[in-house]
Amino acid sequence: MTPPSTQVFMKTRFILIQTSHAGNVGGVARAMKVMGFDDLVLVNPRFDNVLRREETKQRASGAQDVLDGARVVATLEEALQGMTHLCATAMTPRDFGPPTRFPREHFQELLSQSTEVPMGIAFLFGSERFGMLNEDVYRCHVALSIPTHPDFGSLNLASAAQVLAYEWRLALGGFSKPAQQAYTSFEPQDQKRAHADAQEIAGLMSHWQESLVKIGFLDPLAPKKLMPRLQQIFNRAQLSSEEVHILRGVAKQMVPKDPIKRID
Amino acid sequence: MTPPSTQVFMKTRFILIQTSHAGNVGGVARAMKVMGFDDLVLVNPRFDNVLRREETKQRASGAQDVLDGARVVATLEEALQGMTHLCATAMTPRDFGPPTRFPREHFQELLSQSTEVPMGIAFLFGSERFGMLNEDVYRCHVALSIPTHPDFGSLNLASAAQVLAYEWRLALGGFSKPAQQAYTSFEPQDQKRAHADAQEIAGLMSHWQESLVKIGFLDPLAPKKLMPRLQQIFNRAQLSSEEVHILRGVAKQMVPKDPIKRID
Repeated sequence: MTPPSTQVFMKTRFILIQTSHAGNVGGVARAMKVMGFDDLVLVNPRFDNVLRREETKQRASGAQDVLDGARVVATLEEALQGMTHLCATAMTPRDFGPPTRFPREHFQELLSQSTEVPMGIAFLFGSERFGMLNEDVYRCHVALSIPTHPDFGSLNLASAAQVLAYEWRLALGGFSKPAQQAYTSFEPQDQKRAHADAQEIAGLMSHWQESLVKIGFLDPLAPKKLMPRLQQIFNRAQLSSEEVHILRGVAKQMVPKDPIKRID
Repeated sequence: MTPPSTQVFMKTRFILIQTSHAGNVGGVARAMKVMGFDDLVLVNPRFDNVLRREETKQRASGAQDVLDGARVVATLEEALQGMTHLCATAMTPRDFGPPTRFPREHFQELLSQSTEVPMGIAFLFGSERFGMLNEDVYRCHVALSIPTHPDFGSLNLASAAQVLAYEWRLALGGFSKPAQQAYTSFEPQDQKRAHADAQEIAGLMSHWQESLVKIGFLDPLAPKKLMPRLQQIFNRAQLSSEEVHILRGVAKQMVPKDPIKRID
């Protein structure tokens, strides 16, 4: 993951133009929130009350606060206030339009060029049926194209928003710090899994060899390649000391106890 | 974008476990298709007829062929046939579970390690309400965690599938080459060290479990985490079919023969 870039004056807005499906509005809100964005503007949506419709709320799931904070405006002009870098999302490159770029490469370049200048980046999504108007695309700095199968490029609106939100968040440095907290329970285990050293592995191998001979699985006179093969398996597994201990326990236990004692 | 990696023997499957929302099934089908994937398996979905429900078809949009080709099975076991690398998608790391990784880093590493070996990669998604069962996570090689905001990690199922499909497609080299070629040559013709598939590993695990109980190393009433730990060791070793055979031989041989025969 790219380290967080130096400039911190970054504002991110998602703009939906003439969206017709309430479910998509909810889906976009949720897609934004999981990636830590909250500025949503709807330009002339099909339903005036789209932010309060049942389907919208349902698909937004826990992102109700994004819906609550969203604005509905009549024109793209109003939606763009304060924004400095406009990204169209359009599958079809336009003549005379902005350059068409993949999101990942564009974001990396954008952030590497950036200075300390405050910046507002807007992602514009056209309507489900007609996409974006040419004139709306023309005013953008870039047309972001998510790479899709050449025969089927029909990304769902909320899915496209999810991919862009994800890429943009990673480009901004991801959630590396807080995310590590999410894994705290994993870290100690990871430390426990320090690789066993060569001596421990050698001890394991001879213990197994001994037991395999005792149970009659390994013929010491015709060992074939059994032990080297087991060694390879254990090597590839990169065993921890604790795991060596477990596997030696198996080797010990697989040998039947002294038969005389059983008769007792 | 990463250049296409040299190995082309790659099969990709999406597995939805106990999915309850028909819309999500359709959304996943569409998310797969835009990224050029088509192998969808549903394990015990809430609705038996989920592939034919109106909501499913609507959300699938143009991906009806993915729905048509999808299979519904009763158990995860059946869904995993032919798969060699299992990716859980789980937000919560499990003790004794597989390592938790970000998709991007994991895919890059996976592909850089791969050789000419045929490989089947499966992405497993748990139910919307309960996620994945521990026992299902335990059998996986990795738990993929999409980085999300620490306070709101609630990704929609279809959105998660979209992000993973996108990342995996980019890791495979994007669409610079025709996607179809990636599948044609999957047939496991490389016998050198073809990875054992999930069913073979499951067979190995239950054989070992049985034997470890018989020799008194595993207490079925207090199994602790022995089997998940062994599973992780074997997963990391990426066993071949032949090695599974050897290890089952060990499991068989470690159980003492019928004591009555010994008296003879």
